[in-house]
Amino acid sequence: MFHKHGGDIYTYSGAVDFSANINYLGMPPKVREAAIRSIDGSLHYPDPDYRSLRRALARRENVLNEWQLPEPEYTGCENKAQMIRSEHIICGNGAAELMFALAAAKHPRKALLAVPSFFEYEQALGAFGCRIHRYSMAKEYQFRLEEDFFDAIDEETDCIVLGNPNNPTGRLLESSFLDKAAKICSQRGILFVLDESFFDFLCEEDKKKTWSGTGKVLDHPNLFVIKSFTKMYAMPGLRFGYGICSDTELLEKMRALMQPWNVSVPAQAAAEAAAGELQFAKKTADLISRNKAEMTEWMEQAGYRVYPSNANFLLFEGPEDLGDFCLKEGWMIRDCSNFPGLEKGTFRICVRSREENRALMEVLKRGIMRWQK
Amino acid sequence: MFHKHGGDIYTYSGAVDFSANINYLGMPPKVREAAIRSIDGSLHYPDPDYRSLRRALARRENVLNEWQLPEPEYTGCENKAQMIRSEHIICGNGAAELMFALAAAKHPRKALLAVPSFFEYEQALGAFGCRIHRYSMAKEYQFRLEEDFFDAIDEETDCIVLGNPNNPTGRLLESSFLDKAAKICSQRGILFVLDESFFDFLCEEDKKKTWSGTGKVLDHPNLFVIKSFTKMYAMPGLRFGYGICSDTELLEKMRALMQPWNVSVPAQAAAEAAAGELQFAKKTADLISRNKAEMTEWMEQAGYRVYPSNANFLLFEGPEDLGDFCLKEGWMIRDCSNFPGLEKGTFRICVRSREENRALMEVLKRGIMRWQK
Repeated sequence: MFHKHGGDIYTYSGAVDFSANINYLGMPPKVREAAIRSIDGSLHYPDPDYRSLRRALARRENVLNEWQLPEPEYTGCENKAQMIRSEHIICGNGAAELMFALAAAKHPRKALLAVPSFFEYEQALGAFGCRIHRYSMAKEYQFRLEEDFFDAIDEETDCIVLGNPNNPTGRLLESSFLDKAAKICSQRGILFVLDESFFDFLCEEDKKKTWSGTGKVLDHPNLFVIKSFTKMYAMPGLRFGYGICSDTELLEKMRALMQPWNVSVPAQAAAEAAAGELQFAKKTADLISRNKAEMTEWMEQAGYRVYPSNANFLLFEGPEDLGDFCLKEGWMIRDCSNFPGLEKGTFRICVRSREENRALMEVLKRGIMRWQK
Repeated sequence: MFHKHGGDIYTYSGAVDFSANINYLGMPPKVREAAIRSIDGSLHYPDPDYRSLRRALARRENVLNEWQLPEPEYTGCENKAQMIRSEHIICGNGAAELMFALAAAKHPRKALLAVPSFFEYEQALGAFGCRIHRYSMAKEYQFRLEEDFFDAIDEETDCIVLGNPNNPTGRLLESSFLDKAAKICSQRGILFVLDESFFDFLCEEDKKKTWSGTGKVLDHPNLFVIKSFTKMYAMPGLRFGYGICSDTELLEKMRALMQPWNVSVPAQAAAEAAAGELQFAKKTADLISRNKAEMTEWMEQAGYRVYPSNANFLLFEGPEDLGDFCLKEGWMIRDCSNFPGLEKGTFRICVRSREENRALMEVLKRGIMRWQK
């Protein structure tokens, strides 16, 4: 196995990291400063109720849900009926912790997953005894999730997990598909876990094709939306993710299964600063969209098969040993052959700056020419 | 309820905090600097194997286990048979996370606890369906744990949890008691959880009366030692604790029940720096020991009943409304009436600097005089 996860800079120190899907712009300055300032506040325990942070997150979600950018002193949502409140939000030491707490609280017996997808879904569910039913998205359809996914829901299925957009394929789910999924799950009492860790990377055009679960949780108490600040705000080392759900009893049960101080002081401080950085997210999505189109074109010209992606990364096919080849040259890419549902010779790279992408492209060109000889 | 835990500065902002048992010297400068420097490294995921950190922790434990201070380039333990290795160490997002993971991995059916003790033992065990049997330490014996504790172990008991020294009583467990506990647990296959979160606060004299589980885990695979850097290195907001156990299968099972990146980059950086700060710990223990004796004397002169403590805090009895009285004056103390096994009018304070202790003493004097009138 190349390595289980992307971003393992500890084994391959010194290599340029295209294997983790982190925003290449780095942390917004306000987020970085809030984290640094918070170290002196770490003499105290974190707030186990994340009061200030959850208010900031609720504001963010309500703003995003209206597809508009916030006023400097945004409080406009406070009196509206369809709005997210603090009590609908649960905070985690990274989104991954929430997946484990959700599995522990709900104890699903049989979960349907659309693979290839993020490995922690299976790990978390499996750790608490859930059987996994894998629906394979076909590479012939460029890993688009087709409607026959719903035929794979059987009488025992009590949980489905979908990524929007999905990792490692990068494909978004269209509104009509999501509507159907939400309806079926509501009707049959199925827990619907919707991972939106990469949602904020969608460009404006893509956002019109889909919806965020934030706007649906109040109508669908069995919908659990997972959000992460790890990727957009480049803070994977600080660990912060959150969940949105209107089933407050479930959230309380999850909370009881986690220790009281699960989100550190630096993570809370950075996340609260990040919650207000909506312009940063929009700017990122625009830049990534442009750089991604360019990189895709370059790669296809070089002879790679690149799958369409709505996220900040690209899935593609290349020579089986491309990962090792790149690593020797000092570049880390993600060998995806250990994802259930993907074959050897499938890789994922993060979309970074034009300059970095161009530099990686030189390596990728040499990597495929060697193979074409 | 006053508040569930100590250290809730978010509800009572501005108050001086004697309610959490944090080292009043604050973070050692190297720990603080390591945490601040690590923010820029938080662009990357944490090392899920904590390789560098676990090596530092193993070195620390081997040094402490020999009751000696380290050479500047300490590597002397590497060739010895009875030594802790990285594989015996598991890292947690605070010690509390490890308690939850241990409960999830072992699923004890019936645990015997000596109360009053840290509430998270019950919360973690109860969350995974374990029945709790409480053995009450008597205030008549000044909360000393008596040998009849062992009579409370019945055929169903498959777990015991003890703190050494114990929170909130501050009492240490003597070597003969620990020997007996380890022997019984080994013979009957009982999981023995020994929480040493406050062990490093013991003064040199007290250390001679007891032992640390670090020196025993290799002979007792059912012994699980919990260590925390939260208190000694004043980093509760960064979240770091670790466990030591020679049952590596158990550690692997616990690891599978936690997300891969449970310990943040700042926590790993700070903990690695703290692991080498043994002189700081020794200096702290000496200072606390002196200040504690002085504070005890002052309090007894003022009319308080103070229980003997080997840790960095004091349990005492006072007027039932003393917590509220202090809070109104801007001082937080820990109302312990919500600890099972303690009555109303029982409080805990952290031992801090002479100056701070003296200032609190003025408030405590007024608090008890009001009551004596």
